[in-house]
Amino acid sequence: MRFARFDLDGRPGHGIVEGDRIIPISGSPFEPWRPAGAAVALDQVKLLIPVVPSNFYAVGMNYAAHIRERARGLGVAPELPTRAEPGYRSPSALVAHDDDIVLPPDTASVQFEGELVVVIGRCAKNVREEDALNYVLGYTIGNDVSERKWQKIDRTFWRCKNSDTFKPMGPWIETDVNLESLRTMVRVNGIQHIEFSTNDMLFGVARFIATISEYCTLHPGDVIWMGTEGASADLYAGDVVEVEISSIGTLRNTVISVPRAT
Amino acid sequence: MRFARFDLDGRPGHGIVEGDRIIPISGSPFEPWRPAGAAVALDQVKLLIPVVPSNFYAVGMNYAAHIRERARGLGVAPELPTRAEPGYRSPSALVAHDDDIVLPPDTASVQFEGELVVVIGRCAKNVREEDALNYVLGYTIGNDVSERKWQKIDRTFWRCKNSDTFKPMGPWIETDVNLESLRTMVRVNGIQHIEFSTNDMLFGVARFIATISEYCTLHPGDVIWMGTEGASADLYAGDVVEVEISSIGTLRNTVISVPRAT
Repeated sequence: MRFARFDLDGRPGHGIVEGDRIIPISGSPFEPWRPAGAAVALDQVKLLIPVVPSNFYAVGMNYAAHIRERARGLGVAPELPTRAEPGYRSPSALVAHDDDIVLPPDTASVQFEGELVVVIGRCAKNVREEDALNYVLGYTIGNDVSERKWQKIDRTFWRCKNSDTFKPMGPWIETDVNLESLRTMVRVNGIQHIEFSTNDMLFGVARFIATISEYCTLHPGDVIWMGTEGASADLYAGDVVEVEISSIGTLRNTVISVPRAT
Repeated sequence: MRFARFDLDGRPGHGIVEGDRIIPISGSPFEPWRPAGAAVALDQVKLLIPVVPSNFYAVGMNYAAHIRERARGLGVAPELPTRAEPGYRSPSALVAHDDDIVLPPDTASVQFEGELVVVIGRCAKNVREEDALNYVLGYTIGNDVSERKWQKIDRTFWRCKNSDTFKPMGPWIETDVNLESLRTMVRVNGIQHIEFSTNDMLFGVARFIATISEYCTLHPGDVIWMGTEGASADLYAGDVVEVEISSIGTLRNTVISVPRAT
């Protein structure tokens, strides 16, 4: 089942995506719901980010080739994590499918990172790894847009990872997912830059949920971005970047620039 | 004026604190409001965190003596930041005035950090430093509870700073504040451990708001924890820790331990 969040007469509404239409529901996927209202055509609605997370976890180093590539970019020796350790992003950076990625005026190298996003369905505290997937509502797609100059020179990831519009997420939440079979593909202007097995992580979804929940209660609607694989490429104004994860969907955004503020 | 958030018949309500009572208001401090309902005695209500932030900024290194002290603890040379750079905390760790700080079972050294907390009142993007304070609704108090072993060995601050209950915030939001005159005091079991001039920051409130807003839109209810000064001390089960900031109030929490989960 696919849960979308969309602009319904100027207010956020939730619905079930079936083929090329959305059936509105009462409430949200995180509470009891029922169909409510007439189906609308998917291409007639503005999709919103599928969830507004209270807590926004992100895994920085979770695929071997990406770690080697980032180490090369930073001029340091690659070091594989030995434990599952999440970082954070800020909800203020989130934008939806079809929204623009706005390049700040003073950027040097802005790159895509296609990621699987876990959406938590119910409170999780001290859950075991073998039970952890029971706390997942479903999965969506994230583009962890990153400015590499700031990533190198700043003490924190605040602007390199969290500038406005740097966190596209969507298009919807897919609940029926076989993690083992997923493939992630990133295309820029229709040209594929990378394809990888989504679940080839150093530490998987269940491990991260179990680990986080040992210290931090996970809440419905919290998201965990699971990291990306391989090398990324620079994005330029006018580019259309698509992150596709098989059986989930495609997250598409256009890159634009803004003039320097005067 | 002091805005409190409190349990009102099982639901969160907002009110104005006047002396030893709270006058309930309609809505919240972030929208038009008016007095609504009979005043209640302050000591008869359960205070909640005064705001649930969507974006939770925290400044790690913003006072000179604290930076020297942390460097000593980590066995590295102290290095003063040359630019205002925020980090993040997670709202899941927030607890209110009078709530307990729960020590996880495997902690080695859990310490207090008394901090001024800025509460944003309206959207801020590309604001100038000289205008920045106009975007502040008011100020509250935070205790940036920190586990020093994890702070040293982990790649991120996820559990050392964001374990459940590690972010007490409150008791309320004070809107009438003269930053220059503020003093921060931290007491454990009534014994004062530290006192410092709250505004003796490397980079002040206005600078941080202006800097963040150059890249990240600040939203009503977002909070910026401004860092702490000097050395902290270990907390133990049974301790009562109070962070007082003159003219704002006192944030008080009791430390408890939990048995290791079986």
